[in-house]
Amino acid sequence: MPRPVIETLATGDEVVNGDIVDGNAAYASRQLAGRGLLVTRHTALPDDTVALEAGIREIGARASLCVVSGGLGPTEDDLTPDVVARILGVPLEVDAEALGRMEERFARAGYRLSSNNLRSVSVPAGTEVLQNEAGTAPGFTATIGGCLFFFLPGVPTEYRFFVDAHLLPRVGRLWPGGFGAVVQLKTLGWGESHLAERFEDFPRLFPLIRVGYRAKAPEVWLKLTCEAASRSEALAFLEPAVTEAERRLGPSIFGRDEQELDGIVHGLLRDRAATLAVAESCTGGLISSLLTRHPGASDVFIGGVVAYSNALKEHLLGVPSSVLGRHGAVSPETAEAMAAGAANRTGAQFALSVTGIAGPTGATPGKPVGLVYLGLAYRTAGGAILVRTLERRFRGGRERVQRASALTALEMLRRHLLGLPELEPAP
Amino acid sequence: MPRPVIETLATGDEVVNGDIVDGNAAYASRQLAGRGLLVTRHTALPDDTVALEAGIREIGARASLCVVSGGLGPTEDDLTPDVVARILGVPLEVDAEALGRMEERFARAGYRLSSNNLRSVSVPAGTEVLQNEAGTAPGFTATIGGCLFFFLPGVPTEYRFFVDAHLLPRVGRLWPGGFGAVVQLKTLGWGESHLAERFEDFPRLFPLIRVGYRAKAPEVWLKLTCEAASRSEALAFLEPAVTEAERRLGPSIFGRDEQELDGIVHGLLRDRAATLAVAESCTGGLISSLLTRHPGASDVFIGGVVAYSNALKEHLLGVPSSVLGRHGAVSPETAEAMAAGAANRTGAQFALSVTGIAGPTGATPGKPVGLVYLGLAYRTAGGAILVRTLERRFRGGRERVQRASALTALEMLRRHLLGLPELEPAP
Repeated sequence: MPRPVIETLATGDEVVNGDIVDGNAAYASRQLAGRGLLVTRHTALPDDTVALEAGIREIGARASLCVVSGGLGPTEDDLTPDVVARILGVPLEVDAEALGRMEERFARAGYRLSSNNLRSVSVPAGTEVLQNEAGTAPGFTATIGGCLFFFLPGVPTEYRFFVDAHLLPRVGRLWPGGFGAVVQLKTLGWGESHLAERFEDFPRLFPLIRVGYRAKAPEVWLKLTCEAASRSEALAFLEPAVTEAERRLGPSIFGRDEQELDGIVHGLLRDRAATLAVAESCTGGLISSLLTRHPGASDVFIGGVVAYSNALKEHLLGVPSSVLGRHGAVSPETAEAMAAGAANRTGAQFALSVTGIAGPTGATPGKPVGLVYLGLAYRTAGGAILVRTLERRFRGGRERVQRASALTALEMLRRHLLGLPELEPAP
Repeated sequence: MPRPVIETLATGDEVVNGDIVDGNAAYASRQLAGRGLLVTRHTALPDDTVALEAGIREIGARASLCVVSGGLGPTEDDLTPDVVARILGVPLEVDAEALGRMEERFARAGYRLSSNNLRSVSVPAGTEVLQNEAGTAPGFTATIGGCLFFFLPGVPTEYRFFVDAHLLPRVGRLWPGGFGAVVQLKTLGWGESHLAERFEDFPRLFPLIRVGYRAKAPEVWLKLTCEAASRSEALAFLEPAVTEAERRLGPSIFGRDEQELDGIVHGLLRDRAATLAVAESCTGGLISSLLTRHPGASDVFIGGVVAYSNALKEHLLGVPSSVLGRHGAVSPETAEAMAAGAANRTGAQFALSVTGIAGPTGATPGKPVGLVYLGLAYRTAGGAILVRTLERRFRGGRERVQRASALTALEMLRRHLLGLPELEPAP
C-alpha cells in the first residue's frame, strides 16, 4: 500500500497574525503518529478566500489526507464552507441534523438563536457531514484533487472531539497497518548535548532507527523513530533500541510518549493512597496548578500555600523567623522549614517546597537569579517528618526558572516514591 | 513601495509530529503585525534535507521575507545550516565570534565543550551572522530566490531575542512606513455570537475596516484590521471604528492588543500600592500562578492558599465547619468565608476566592460540573472586610472551567478597582 502524504492546514487571521498559537495541528499529528502515520507538513493561512482556495488546491495536488481546522462558525470571517463549496461547484446547505442539535443545545442552555448561527450549520451540498457532539458547527469531509480533507472546527475541545471520534477511526480503516512507530523517552537530569553525546553511536548500532532530541528545560526527550512496512514491524525494529536507551538513561527516564511528569506523580501517589501538600514561593502556585489539572486531583492533593511574603511563610507554614533572619528566604534552611511546615500543618504524607529567585529582579550578592532551593518532606514509619533539600541554579527567564523549579520538585518526589537514586546535586 | 509577502517556516520533526506546539511563528507574526506587516503563511516541515530544501526554495520563489526557526544546534537532526549551504553552493564554516562567546559561556557555567558543540556555531560561508546573546547557536540571514531569510534558533527565549534584536530593526529599515495596523479589544462577559451580532453593521459603517473575533472562554476579542498605504494612515482609518466599538462594549473591555487580564490587574494593584491574597479550591493555584508570572509580583501579591480539602479550608482559611456542613464546599457562603478568611489571615487589602466543580467528576444533585462560586473580599475605610460573590456555570472541560473561573475572578477585581459596574449574574 502506498505511504500516504499527510498534512494539516490551520485557517484564520488569528493564527497567521499570531494572536493564538495553534495547538490543533500538533494534536492531530501526535494522534496520527501514534498510529504510525507521520505528518509531513503544517500550513497556516489567513481568512482570505483567494489564499484559502489556492492553498486547499495546492494541498489537494500534493497530499492524500489533510486535516483542516477553523473557519466553521457563525461569523463573517468563517469562510471555509464557502471556499470548499466554490471549489466543488456546489451550493451551501443547512444540515438538518446539525440544526436540530444546535436548537436543542441552545434551548437547554436558555440561549436564543442569533441570525448568525444558521451559518455555522451550513455545509457544502453533497459532502459527508460529521456531527459535533462537543459544540455547534458540524465538520465535513470532501475529496479535492487526490486528497481526502477533514474540515473541522478550530475550537480546541471541538477539534479534539472530531479527531478522536471521526478522523482516527477513518484512518484506521484506510491504513490499518500503519507505516511506522515512534517511541519517546522523557528524561530529567541531563542536558541535551550531553545526552546526544551518549547516543552518538546509535545510528551505527541501529541503522533503521532515527534519533531525535527535544529539550524543554528541565526535560530532555529522546525520540526514536522507525518507518517500516507496518506499525508492528516498526515496533519490532524499535524494541532493542528502546531497551538499550533505557539501560543508558536509567532512572533519569521519568516517562514515555504522551506521559507528563505531573500526571505520573499524581498516579504514583494515587496508587499508594498517599497525600501531598505544597509550599511554594517563587513558583507561585505552579506545582499546585500542574497537579490540579488532573481529574481526581483531590484524592491525592490536599492543597498548599503560596507563601510569597516572609510573613506568610511564618504565619501559614510556621517557618521560624530566626531561620528567615539568619539564612534568608532563599536558603536550604527555609526550603526545609517550608516543606516540614506544609506536611505538619496539612497532615499530608509528603510535602514539596520551593524557594528561589525567579528573576528578573530579586538577586542579591551571592544569590543570583535562577538560584532555587527545593525541599521534599516525608514521614518515617514512626511518624517523624524528614526533609531532603536540593540546590539548583536554573538558566533562562522567569517562566523558565519557575517551570524548571516546579518540575524538578516533582521529579524529587517521583524518585523518592520509586526508591530511585536522588537527583545529583549539580544539574 | 510594494507590499512584502511575509512568511514563517518552522523546522523540526518535533513540530510536525506534534510533540511541541510551535509558538515562535505566532511571536514573530504578532511583532510584525504591530508594525503593520502582516504575515500571510506559516509552514512547518520535518528534519529532512530534501523536504527542507524544497520548502525553502518554494518560499524563496513566493515571499520577500521569511522567518525560519529551528535546526540550528549541536545535534544530528539540526540540518538547517547544511541545507542552506547546499542551496547557496558554499561550505559551512565555524564563526569565530560565536565560538568565542560559546567558550566563554561554557567556562563561566563550568560546563565542558562537547564535540557536538562546534556544529552549533557553524554557518554557511559568506552569510550575515547574527550573534546570539540568549544562547549558543548564532542565527544568520541569506537571500534565496527573491526572499530574505532569517534563520533563527528554535528555543523560544533565543528565538524571541533574535526577533527583537535583529529582525525587527531590519524590517524597520526595509519598510519604515509599514502597511497597515491592527487594534484588538479584549472583552469578558459576552459570548462570541452575541458580540458579533452587535457588530453586524460595522462593515457598512466602516468599509475599510475588517472585523474579526477570537473566543478564548471566558474572553472574546474583537479585532479591527485596516490595510493602507502606511501604518499611520491605517491608524487614522481605525480611530473612529475603535471609538465606536469602545462605546458599544463599555466596561466589558478589559484590555487592548498584547495586554492580558492578569497583567492588567497586577498593574492596577501596583498603581494603588494595594495587596492581594487568594484562596483557591477548584482552580488549584491557577490565579496565583497567573499573577506570579509577572516580574515584581511580590509587590502586590502576598500569596494564598490552595485549599482543596475541607480540612484546609477550615484550618488555613478559617471557614467555619458549620458553613461547610450546612451549605457545602461549593456554595456562595463558602466562597464568601474563603475570601474573608484569606484577607483576614494574610492582612491583604483584597482577596479572591474560588470554589466549584471543575469536573469531570464531583458533580452532585443540584451542583453540576462547571458550577463555580467566586468571592471578592475588600476592606472598607473603617477596616471592615466586605465580600461580594458571583455564581457562574461554565461549559467545557476541566481546564476550560479552571481558566474561566480564574479569569472571571480577576475581572471581578478589575471592575471593583476601577469602580466599574459589576459582572452581571447570568453569564
